[in-house]
Amino acid sequence: MTSAYDYASQHRERFLQQLIDLAAIPSVGTDPAHADDTRRAAEYLADDMRAIGLNNVELLPTSGNPVVYADWLGAGSSAPTVLIYAHYDVQPAAKSDGWDTDPFVPTLRDGKLYGRGVADDKSNSILTLKAAESLLASDEGCPVNLKFLFEGDEESGSAGLPDFIRQQRDRLKADMAIIADGGLDKADQPMIIYAMRGITAFDVRVTGPKTDLHSGVHGGIVHNPAQVIAEIVARLHNTDGSVAVPGFYDDVLPLDDAERAQLQKQDLTPEEWASYIGAPQPWGEPGYSLAERTGARPTLEINGIFGGYAGTGFKTVIPAQAGAKISCRLVANQKPQRIFELVRDYILQIAPPTVKVEFERHGEGDPVVVALDSPIVQALKRAFKLHWPQEVVFKRTGGSVPIVALLQDQLNLPCVPLGFSLADSGIHGPNEHYHVDLFYKGIDTTIRFLQEIAAGQ
Amino acid sequence: MTSAYDYASQHRERFLQQLIDLAAIPSVGTDPAHADDTRRAAEYLADDMRAIGLNNVELLPTSGNPVVYADWLGAGSSAPTVLIYAHYDVQPAAKSDGWDTDPFVPTLRDGKLYGRGVADDKSNSILTLKAAESLLASDEGCPVNLKFLFEGDEESGSAGLPDFIRQQRDRLKADMAIIADGGLDKADQPMIIYAMRGITAFDVRVTGPKTDLHSGVHGGIVHNPAQVIAEIVARLHNTDGSVAVPGFYDDVLPLDDAERAQLQKQDLTPEEWASYIGAPQPWGEPGYSLAERTGARPTLEINGIFGGYAGTGFKTVIPAQAGAKISCRLVANQKPQRIFELVRDYILQIAPPTVKVEFERHGEGDPVVVALDSPIVQALKRAFKLHWPQEVVFKRTGGSVPIVALLQDQLNLPCVPLGFSLADSGIHGPNEHYHVDLFYKGIDTTIRFLQEIAAGQ
Repeated sequence: MTSAYDYASQHRERFLQQLIDLAAIPSVGTDPAHADDTRRAAEYLADDMRAIGLNNVELLPTSGNPVVYADWLGAGSSAPTVLIYAHYDVQPAAKSDGWDTDPFVPTLRDGKLYGRGVADDKSNSILTLKAAESLLASDEGCPVNLKFLFEGDEESGSAGLPDFIRQQRDRLKADMAIIADGGLDKADQPMIIYAMRGITAFDVRVTGPKTDLHSGVHGGIVHNPAQVIAEIVARLHNTDGSVAVPGFYDDVLPLDDAERAQLQKQDLTPEEWASYIGAPQPWGEPGYSLAERTGARPTLEINGIFGGYAGTGFKTVIPAQAGAKISCRLVANQKPQRIFELVRDYILQIAPPTVKVEFERHGEGDPVVVALDSPIVQALKRAFKLHWPQEVVFKRTGGSVPIVALLQDQLNLPCVPLGFSLADSGIHGPNEHYHVDLFYKGIDTTIRFLQEIAAGQ
Repeated sequence: MTSAYDYASQHRERFLQQLIDLAAIPSVGTDPAHADDTRRAAEYLADDMRAIGLNNVELLPTSGNPVVYADWLGAGSSAPTVLIYAHYDVQPAAKSDGWDTDPFVPTLRDGKLYGRGVADDKSNSILTLKAAESLLASDEGCPVNLKFLFEGDEESGSAGLPDFIRQQRDRLKADMAIIADGGLDKADQPMIIYAMRGITAFDVRVTGPKTDLHSGVHGGIVHNPAQVIAEIVARLHNTDGSVAVPGFYDDVLPLDDAERAQLQKQDLTPEEWASYIGAPQPWGEPGYSLAERTGARPTLEINGIFGGYAGTGFKTVIPAQAGAKISCRLVANQKPQRIFELVRDYILQIAPPTVKVEFERHGEGDPVVVALDSPIVQALKRAFKLHWPQEVVFKRTGGSVPIVALLQDQLNLPCVPLGFSLADSGIHGPNEHYHVDLFYKGIDTTIRFLQEIAAGQ
């Protein structure tokens, strides 16, 4: 008699190798130079889905990179159907960003796997597939029907996903969804995220002179766009750390005392803040704890600022153009479209008449709060008893998973995020890494999660 | 009987080809990746110096790229000795900066030569050598002694030149110097620059978190360095366009009424401003004309601002570090060291305690004013009668040629800038170009200039 856990244990080296193989593919979905790599990552997953016995495996087109879809409906119509979401695209990365090893040569060191995407989100992509493989190959079989939706545009805002989900409503029909793009704060602390921030992201670009100019010959008679973008960005926050855009906080649902008290218990200690962040001192909106600022308050971040020469040495240039990449993280009940318009209108109002101002929007997603007593949340809470002795904590996260809002709005699916990367895994930064033992525990926990979903039905 | 002008006319195609050959070498002196190319440009010039009959040709080491030195002392000890300065390094350039053709494939179009460095400063390097060649090959011969000093670090601030000139004081002994790194405002208007701005250039970098962070997970509890650099840069100017650094204007020599009246006549018309600059509207320090702002007033320019992600698409990152590249153009009697200290101290004072602030200095140079009645200025004024029917104008320029201050201070040489690029030649920007007919007129004018120097002795 081979249980799913036995099977997972017997095949763990191969499972890890599959994560390594997938992470070696630089699927930077946002970069046209990596279009072939991104496609290759999708095909790797599709091949594995076929290999483990899933059906209807297809790369379905979207306006961006394809969605990898597969299903297995062998549990029968009385069993619940679980939609599993993950993404195979990764953030850009270059060794020169500060990596100790090549970001696309996954490297094992001290029980951790280093590489771009090993935590976000290739670990969770492989881990859910390997849980499904283990159940399907075991003697007890898989007790739930499965549908997989792995997208390739999460890191650039999932722009094509809303249309895709509307068009594929029938195919994606399910009873609940696992958003396999989550993580844990600490290796020994099981955690269920019940609230996620929304997002609206865009570029603002200012154009002054018709061409780059010599800063000696022409310096003094033209409003330098690199200076203008700084002057605009500097006015987006008040000196106390709050966002200066009028109306920005208007739609924010205030926290009640009970939730504030609960969040208070999860607040980062000064030591934890120093360990995760390590800046000279903390900063942020006054009147809120660190956990509240990242989980329950909206923010406006400068993800990039650029203009003129940024290489080694010096270039005495007045750039024709400069810009900033801005994203706002949103909380209930803010709407991405409304917040974008507020920021855009404010920037247009404060921008000087010496430049032309243009905007380019990237992705967006609504903020989400999930019911704590839903069967999917309760099943995950029970599944966490397998390897984690500690009591589960329920948490708001600062990150955004726009798919959650989409699946709730479009398909009416209760969703829960699942994932086993850690808060200090370096996702989106250099030296992203993943604890190998959490990969194995994650597979077991996912097996148990699917079993508990069936049991709780 | 072959005059120098005859010789120049007979060899004009080869002379132009030599400019094309030199401009095809990407001698980006500031970029280690172009170290070999920069060396190659120096060797090209040294070979040509030998070929035209100059003596003591040598690549002399500096702390940066070598100086190409050569001399010809055949005019005898009673004739004046003229030191000719130019530079063979060029600004960085990439086709993606907005060039219509590859910046390092010099391209002739509509009577103009396009390519990085064709105006600044390879035209002047070749043109002065070809004037010397024409005089040396002519029946009348060369009436002055010549020394050439072509450097390779001008675009990065000539950091090694002060030490070099102090060490080579004897070798460089001369009666006057031509700084072949100048230009004209208009093709039909002879112009002599009698004042140049000084410069001090540096990077300021701010470091916040110990590594790049995910802007969703950690946004709201850390002062984003890309935001901090914007907040710092925004406070370097007052809203009226003046520099906000306390003491910045303290040492500026005020203009007298006569000079203001003269500069007033050279002021850019709104049409000229639009043609050169083309921004939505002018900007700058109140109370001064455009010519005064670029020629007689100091400025502080942001030559680059950087932090976070600046590529296509989007990356939700809080960068660990951000920075700006800043240069101040200085006028008499400001001192580069003093101005750097004022800006540095002001930035340290306004920088928030949430980041670490660091500075890296680049080159510097004193501002210069040359006497209008000096023999070298008067000789150039007479030389301009050869091809230019219009009266010479005397002008202050906004650019900086630190070598002028160096040669005046260290070698006590009266200096005058010479050059035939135009104000709209796109130097330091994309589509830098050079009018071929001005190349030929420039060679003739330089021949006459050297003859007038001898005649005026």
